[in-house]
Amino acid sequence: MKALVVGGAGFIGSHLCEALLEAGHEVACLDNFSLGTKHNLRRIMDHRNFRLLAMDASEPDSLKAAFGEIQPDYVFHLAANSDIRASAENPSVEYRNTYTTTYQILQCMREFGVKRLFFSSTSAVYGDKRDVLLDENTPNLAPVSYYGAAKLGSEALISAYSFMNDLSVLVFRFPNVIGPHLTHGAVYDFIRKLKRNPKELEILGDGRQTKPYIYVKDLIKAIMFFMDKVPQGMTTYNVGVEGASSVTGMADMICEEMGLKDVKYNYTGGEGGWKGDVPRFNYCIDKIHAAGWHAEYNSDEAVRRTVQDVLKEMA
Amino acid sequence: MKALVVGGAGFIGSHLCEALLEAGHEVACLDNFSLGTKHNLRRIMDHRNFRLLAMDASEPDSLKAAFGEIQPDYVFHLAANSDIRASAENPSVEYRNTYTTTYQILQCMREFGVKRLFFSSTSAVYGDKRDVLLDENTPNLAPVSYYGAAKLGSEALISAYSFMNDLSVLVFRFPNVIGPHLTHGAVYDFIRKLKRNPKELEILGDGRQTKPYIYVKDLIKAIMFFMDKVPQGMTTYNVGVEGASSVTGMADMICEEMGLKDVKYNYTGGEGGWKGDVPRFNYCIDKIHAAGWHAEYNSDEAVRRTVQDVLKEMA
Repeated sequence: MKALVVGGAGFIGSHLCEALLEAGHEVACLDNFSLGTKHNLRRIMDHRNFRLLAMDASEPDSLKAAFGEIQPDYVFHLAANSDIRASAENPSVEYRNTYTTTYQILQCMREFGVKRLFFSSTSAVYGDKRDVLLDENTPNLAPVSYYGAAKLGSEALISAYSFMNDLSVLVFRFPNVIGPHLTHGAVYDFIRKLKRNPKELEILGDGRQTKPYIYVKDLIKAIMFFMDKVPQGMTTYNVGVEGASSVTGMADMICEEMGLKDVKYNYTGGEGGWKGDVPRFNYCIDKIHAAGWHAEYNSDEAVRRTVQDVLKEMA
Repeated sequence: MKALVVGGAGFIGSHLCEALLEAGHEVACLDNFSLGTKHNLRRIMDHRNFRLLAMDASEPDSLKAAFGEIQPDYVFHLAANSDIRASAENPSVEYRNTYTTTYQILQCMREFGVKRLFFSSTSAVYGDKRDVLLDENTPNLAPVSYYGAAKLGSEALISAYSFMNDLSVLVFRFPNVIGPHLTHGAVYDFIRKLKRNPKELEILGDGRQTKPYIYVKDLIKAIMFFMDKVPQGMTTYNVGVEGASSVTGMADMICEEMGLKDVKYNYTGGEGGWKGDVPRFNYCIDKIHAAGWHAEYNSDEAVRRTVQDVLKEMA
């Protein structure tokens, strides 16, 4: 199969490219390198079934040229601004990198008759419903972040394009995803800060923000497991893990792995790390479990492994 | 109050401009005249509190200039491609005229500190849920038209911008709206076709598509009634009427009003008028009734009045 992975040089996309190559597929990786890096692709750059297209999926002309050249069988759309905190200051990045990429990809799929799509959505589409067990049927999706809004808008586009063009689309609503190739987020920030100053650590919010973290390799396994099991239309899953990890708990784990003691935590205060941050959520993952997939690592195990991975990468 | 009505020369917008002027407000009408016309504004064009800005709300530079000049207190966003059938062939018009206008308006509101917004949404955000009584808490919104997708994406944007910038937003999900200044849709098409050929009428679908139609002046009264009653955040209402009208029933009414007998109806067949058309839906309007508003005309009365209006306009 010829796979086009949009955002393929990014944190999650690069792992997906590796997994698709391992499974014997041809992989074209398209990335604008706004968050993705060639370093993430170092292990596969010379693979004979791999090719790299350095371009921006929000640009219709270059995207069309890519579709024409590659004639993909399956598109994996992981391009987005994944740094919610950054876009709180600059929402235009969500309009361009998160929503418009989806729109242009769907336009190309429509034009070139490509029928299969994987789309990376997010728990942020639900908004701040901290006291609700969030399942795929939860009503009143009300994003509080520009990121969540652009992803929910993307899901709406996918719904209409699926119906109008007989697509088969797999949508995963990711929780926090961590692991090797991480570029931002609490685990990454804390390690960087503690490398600079091992005595003190600034923690955004009150440290009690508690969310489920999935290990990126578990997530990739889920994509590979479901990618061929999608009926016509749009199929949505919450992808999640057992348990959840608090921000302070992650800081403790990082200090432990780094061999640091008596680090002083300075909390900036407030419930969320920044405006638009959802401090906690409860994710119902019964649907994906019933469909036959379970994560190997729970949330704390995912954090622990990621700390070890990131420390190795920074060494 | 200084009101900015985006899409103010269109079918619904032009009625709203009139009502706002009558209520003593200053009105700036912004329109790109893709569907709007100066003819719709003929009764208010010379009003001392009215001004017209011929520009496209999807263009950030001109929109910013307009916000800077007008410094509006309240924005009414009615700009959209409202012709769902047309955009089925050309989805890009929804990306630009429906979604991007919302995005650029919200960006300007954020930049200029404008806090109040009215947004015209649609029953099309629900998708094809013909056997469900649709209320504002119905889960799994799954648009089947590009129009519904762009409106649902706009609602998602409004949700995030409201939260991040402390906006107060009133969102109406319109059913079919009809009345003077109509530019397309079954009533308008049928009258035009019958003017050309009073012996036969082509009807898209099987004619049994049955939906609620609201008279535009009822809708305007609802906007005027609720516009100052909105708390901070986003408040959404299904706006609707009692009853529903079938396509064949509307054809019968038009023939009657035009004094035509024995018109032969030629059905193109199929449940919907075109792919992405939702052939029927049931709208729960308890929430807006409980909040104190009722439509004056039921669906068939709205159709009857509109036929008379349109015949008068075409005379």
